[in-house]
Amino acid sequence: MPRFEPKNPDYRAVATATFGRQQAMRSFGISIAHLEPGEIDLTMPYSADFTQQNGFVHAGVITAALDTACGIAAFSLMPDGADILTVEFKTNLLAPAKGERFIFRGAVVKPGRTLTVCEARAYAVSGSGESLIATMTGTLMAMLPRNGSAAA
Amino acid sequence: MPRFEPKNPDYRAVATATFGRQQAMRSFGISIAHLEPGEIDLTMPYSADFTQQNGFVHAGVITAALDTACGIAAFSLMPDGADILTVEFKTNLLAPAKGERFIFRGAVVKPGRTLTVCEARAYAVSGSGESLIATMTGTLMAMLPRNGSAAA
Amino acid sequence: MPRFEPKNPDYRAVATATFGRQQAMRSFGISIAHLEPGEIDLTMPYSADFTQQNGFVHAGVITAALDTACGIAAFSLMPDGADILTVEFKTNLLAPAKGERFIFRGAVVKPGRTLTVCEARAYAVSGSGESLIATMTGTLMAMLPRNGSAAA
Amino acid sequence: MPRFEPKNPDYRAVATATFGRQQAMRSFGISIAHLEPGEIDLTMPYSADFTQQNGFVHAGVITAALDTACGIAAFSLMPDGADILTVEFKTNLLAPAKGERFIFRGAVVKPGRTLTVCEARAYAVSGSGESLIATMTGTLMAMLPRNGSAAA
Repeated sequence: MPRFEPKNPDYRAVATATFGRQQAMRSFGISIAHLEPGEIDLTMPYSADFTQQNGFVHAGVITAALDTACGIAAFSLMPDGADILTVEFKTNLLAPAKGERFIFRGAVVKPGRTLTVCEARAYAVSGSGESLIATMTGTLMAMLPRNGSAAA
Repeated sequence: MPRFEPKNPDYRAVATATFGRQQAMRSFGISIAHLEPGEIDLTMPYSADFTQQNGFVHAGVITAALDTACGIAAFSLMPDGADILTVEFKTNLLAPAKGERFIFRGAVVKPGRTLTVCEARAYAVSGSGESLIATMTGTLMAMLPRNGSAAA
Repeated sequence: MPRFEPKNPDYRAVATATFGRQQAMRSFGISIAHLEPGEIDLTMPYSADFTQQNGFVHAGVITAALDTACGIAAFSLMPDGADILTVEFKTNLLAPAKGERFIFRGAVVKPGRTLTVCEARAYAVSGSGESLIATMTGTLMAMLPRNGSAAA
Repeated sequence: MPRFEPKNPDYRAVATATFGRQQAMRSFGISIAHLEPGEIDLTMPYSADFTQQNGFVHAGVITAALDTACGIAAFSLMPDGADILTVEFKTNLLAPAKGERFIFRGAVVKPGRTLTVCEARAYAVSGSGESLIATMTGTLMAMLPRNGSAAA
């Protein structure tokens, strides 16, 4: 059972469309594996194109996926017509991002009219299973339409 | 005059080589514009391939550049044979990443034998000049060679 | 010359009064040493009452001072009738908080109608001078009065 | 069943003694409610002495408790003779700290030989139950004894 009640009954279509407009997600090969109100799983294959000096996925790319996981999780609880922007986030890198693919699990901790706080975790997946490689806490802001028109 | 004295007289070659092995930087089109001991400027053109839903550069890509700016700034002060990893960072997004290109300025705040703390700022550049779009504070860790051999 | 123009001509009286209502500041012995629009210096004597296990000032107390420095700096740029709350902050502890007294310098990085981002630094003062011991980046939120009455 | 195996069989006595030497905890009225390897609950009564301008507990005091919760949780997994220091932490304030008392739950996310990452949550307790008011992610560093003598 979902932990949150969406304000927008169309939340799935709107959240999926917003994700789909993030060209960065397409370039990184990231897709949505699971979506519930306030919760999301993303998945990404390993790609040598986005690595740091030792061949592991760059922390910024892991962060991009965690940020989008937080953003779409928060966005799924926002009212119709809202847009969303990231205020800030903090990432802890717990282990090198090495694996065949990666999973990013984001969830809303505290929804709010203006600000929503989310947490997300990144896992590397290989033959031996999943291992936690990074955590994020992020603050997202709803841009609400005023006077019937969407905010710029 | 540089604010810091490098431990490794070869710091420039070593830092530049490490940057050059970050395939993510090449994919994002990021290059080194300036490098002094403990200080670095990176530059990146706008690319539609790495955008979020409104066509601005994705916060994770901005973060990747800020993280590498912090990492190479910290690395330039480390002794010969060291490797470096990011422990954690926090990014504040101050304005949308829209512009023709972007500059990332990183500097060491506090160098240490094990941990080094850095700050970096991202600027969007357009016809009207530079504007601050994001800040990072990051903690980097030196992986020092033991018993004459480099750490794994 | 101040970097920022206050919206409230009475900013000094209002900011000072808000600081004065923070009973925690009185308990820690913290006072305002300097205040300009968007900038503040606080000072605090060493007190054995607020130490961690090695007799240094507890990181949470250093953080309390940094948070109030950010908060009052942000508040000094807000319009008449606003209240302020802290959304989040991140502190890096660079050196043990040992010294005869401490200085906390806070400044606004990016003011905004709803959110303001600030940075602050903590310095230990002893016979040998000032040394940087901690940094903060914080996000503050303006609570604006609606319909003529102050927000709850 | 505890999630972690302590390296020091005496972990409880050592962790409790370290907590007991934090004079700040005594001044804030904070005590240990529960301690397992890598996990701790602290409790604190409301005190008007440590409030911000609206009479709620100051975010820095909430942070002090969260930091000690992280620190003692991390410390409980460290080997005999280690000392501990906080590298950095980030706090999100989700709701005003109003209540009769407060609970702080800290747990190790990733233990390490040098660095340990922890998370902690603060709850306000009143007649109507517990509510989440703040979260922390923190990085702690073990100071290990070298050559048989404790690090300074």
